[in-house]
Amino acid sequence: MRRFRARVRVMPRPSLLDPQGQAVAHALGELGFRGVAAVRVGRTVELTLEAESAEAAREGALAMCGRLLANPVTEDFALDAVEPA
Amino acid sequence: MRRFRARVRVMPRPSLLDPQGQAVAHALGELGFRGVAAVRVGRTVELTLEAESAEAAREGALAMCGRLLANPVTEDFALDAVEPA
Repeated sequence: MRRFRARVRVMPRPSLLDPQGQAVAHALGELGFRGVAAVRVGRTVELTLEAESAEAAREGALAMCGRLLANPVTEDFALDAVEPA
Repeated sequence: MRRFRARVRVMPRPSLLDPQGQAVAHALGELGFRGVAAVRVGRTVELTLEAESAEAAREGALAMCGRLLANPVTEDFALDAVEPA
């Protein structure tokens, strides 16, 4: 078994309101930042996994997204990286 | 002015406890996932910015991290991508 680090990004679906992102956009404007057209806030989950191969680590991370890490109704997820840890 | 999308990743510092990550790791074990050595949970912030250039968008996003998006005491941030939107 080798150790891998998988990085998962979970974002609210584009069609859904994102009140947290709207609050951040508003706060940036209050701080004087110009040109902020939109903000969306999601999660990054870094998994350190023991697996036989990078492919096995990738499959495991995707299964975890489907079961726990992302809400399939309101969120999209992407696996950004799988690297030796 | 052109429109860019900047993606920022904000993670708890490695030296700090991450209770949310520990809770996720525990839940993955309860669901039957094996080989999960550690989990850390942070945020992804997608900024849609109007800027003169990609470099200006990058500088703006980094300034926003320093002022609002990341807690300098407890979090590290990284700018993962700046792309035309």
